[in-house]
Amino acid sequence: MNLPDVKPVDLSAAPALRALIDGKAKPPGALGRIEDLALQLALIHGHERPTAQRALLAVFAGDHGLTEDGVSRYPAAVTVAMVATLLAGKASANAFAAAVGAEVRIIDAGVNADLAAHPLLVDAKVRKGSRNAAREPALTAGEVGLALSRGATIAASAMGEGFDMLVLGEMGIGNTASSALLASRLAPAQLESCVGRGTGHDDAGLAHKLAVLQRAAGRSAATAPLQVLAEFGGLEIAMMAGAVLGAAAARRPVLVDGFICSAAALAAVRLVPAARDYCIFTHRSAEPGHAVILNALGAEPLLDLGLRLGEGTGALLAVPMVRAAANLLTGVASLEDVLAGRL
Amino acid sequence: MNLPDVKPVDLSAAPALRALIDGKAKPPGALGRIEDLALQLALIHGHERPTAQRALLAVFAGDHGLTEDGVSRYPAAVTVAMVATLLAGKASANAFAAAVGAEVRIIDAGVNADLAAHPLLVDAKVRKGSRNAAREPALTAGEVGLALSRGATIAASAMGEGFDMLVLGEMGIGNTASSALLASRLAPAQLESCVGRGTGHDDAGLAHKLAVLQRAAGRSAATAPLQVLAEFGGLEIAMMAGAVLGAAAARRPVLVDGFICSAAALAAVRLVPAARDYCIFTHRSAEPGHAVILNALGAEPLLDLGLRLGEGTGALLAVPMVRAAANLLTGVASLEDVLAGRL
Repeated sequence: MNLPDVKPVDLSAAPALRALIDGKAKPPGALGRIEDLALQLALIHGHERPTAQRALLAVFAGDHGLTEDGVSRYPAAVTVAMVATLLAGKASANAFAAAVGAEVRIIDAGVNADLAAHPLLVDAKVRKGSRNAAREPALTAGEVGLALSRGATIAASAMGEGFDMLVLGEMGIGNTASSALLASRLAPAQLESCVGRGTGHDDAGLAHKLAVLQRAAGRSAATAPLQVLAEFGGLEIAMMAGAVLGAAAARRPVLVDGFICSAAALAAVRLVPAARDYCIFTHRSAEPGHAVILNALGAEPLLDLGLRLGEGTGALLAVPMVRAAANLLTGVASLEDVLAGRL
Repeated sequence: MNLPDVKPVDLSAAPALRALIDGKAKPPGALGRIEDLALQLALIHGHERPTAQRALLAVFAGDHGLTEDGVSRYPAAVTVAMVATLLAGKASANAFAAAVGAEVRIIDAGVNADLAAHPLLVDAKVRKGSRNAAREPALTAGEVGLALSRGATIAASAMGEGFDMLVLGEMGIGNTASSALLASRLAPAQLESCVGRGTGHDDAGLAHKLAVLQRAAGRSAATAPLQVLAEFGGLEIAMMAGAVLGAAAARRPVLVDGFICSAAALAAVRLVPAARDYCIFTHRSAEPGHAVILNALGAEPLLDLGLRLGEGTGALLAVPMVRAAANLLTGVASLEDVLAGRL
């Protein structure tokens, strides 16, 4: 398949941008991480007046064959119920999106049900759920390619509509299990360090989840990113990886939520390393595998609020920070102008 | 003087509120600190459907006699220049307020200049700057009382207008010096642990600042909050303390910015302990004295972004989090309703 053409940002512009930010009406460095974000945003856009107004939260949904083996505390049917809740505007992600002024769309990447048409629903279904990765490859190479290309198209279309930030969210019972396998193989790291309690396993549930995932990992020695995505799957994860690449190719930032979205970003970066420049890692999930991925990507997230829900809730809370970073560049006077009375 | 009548929140309502939050369509606790914030907000409002829509950033400005002894790296005239920048809408706080949808007003608590009338400027000037606390009491008891009562009135009026969040910000060259003295006396803690580089002192500047503050601290053994405010002053700080009390009496939350705002909140809580319930500590400043105050008040801020600017910039970034917490309570379905298909 043809992956989107992602250009690395032009780091030669960084010193002049840093000087511009330092020269604003504040002590140099006094806005900490927001100054770093302003720099990244300017580099992504390729000029010193980036926008960050219209955020689209795309919640990618999919089911996982691994749930047959009890990797989640919740039944797989919860995926459909939560998609319905998101479409009804009554999930946490809707509440958070309203709080930050982001639009919401739900992307059916691979929900294991026929979903009725809905204005907020994008039908991009590749198949009804992945296969059980503990027993066989979760996806075929063709399915991975389709998920990636549909994700890239969704992101590119949104940026074409005028959205200037893509916020990743996900919904899929079993997807911390799939993400643990992806993180372990692509970081790479020991599987044990990537497996956590997900939606709330007790010790026995956690041990069982780990045993199932060890069986899955034992089936394949794949390390190439396309093959790893096929073996351990997650249609919503593969489609999010494509969306990262699509937004990056359009030179717009991707706000990456917690563990599962970060697993997708990791896959995207392993496919196209330049995509890393376009990723804003928004929050540190309580799920332990997230630290593995952040470490592998050299990322220090903006927020640490003990969130472990997904749906894009953590990434949404960073939207105003990206807007503040853009406004710092475009709306704040220079100290020189302030001291000269030129306002 | 009569301090505002602040009622402690009714903690007997907390278990039912926590159960309501736990029962939302998500694993219990999965929204981490946002769930705690939702609980606090409901307790503040006194019911389970609090609002958090209209945020007012009030930037309290004042000058400090301590600057005569070189406690700041910047000349005192920068206070006036930055007030002009805030009024022109070109300061960092304006940029951040636009990013989160907050209104901005600048409160002249004690700027050492005659300021021209402006639609965004509230004239509450008590006097033109505080006296030099290294040599004499910074304020009289009457001036402290006036600052407190004007602050309380400003907050109460804003809540009466329909604002439902008060965001504290400040501007005043020399005010980390005043705050260090207040923090040391009211936390209480060693003065050395409360003194930092402010707007950017080098080692020699920091040592000089500490020596001046030791001289100030040596002048008075005051520990009673009103007397400490008079000795070590800060008109904008005393007025912010009053604003904390005014918002708390109106049962609305106060979003506390960094070191200086937290020193004001500490003074407010030492005057009226119940005011603590209404304070949301938004971010951890890079200024070392901030940790002393947070520790004294048992507060763990929401954000840690390396900010040390003031103006309310950090507190503004938490506004969407408070909105998200309110929306969690009012807009998210219960898991029971989701599983029963009642949406």
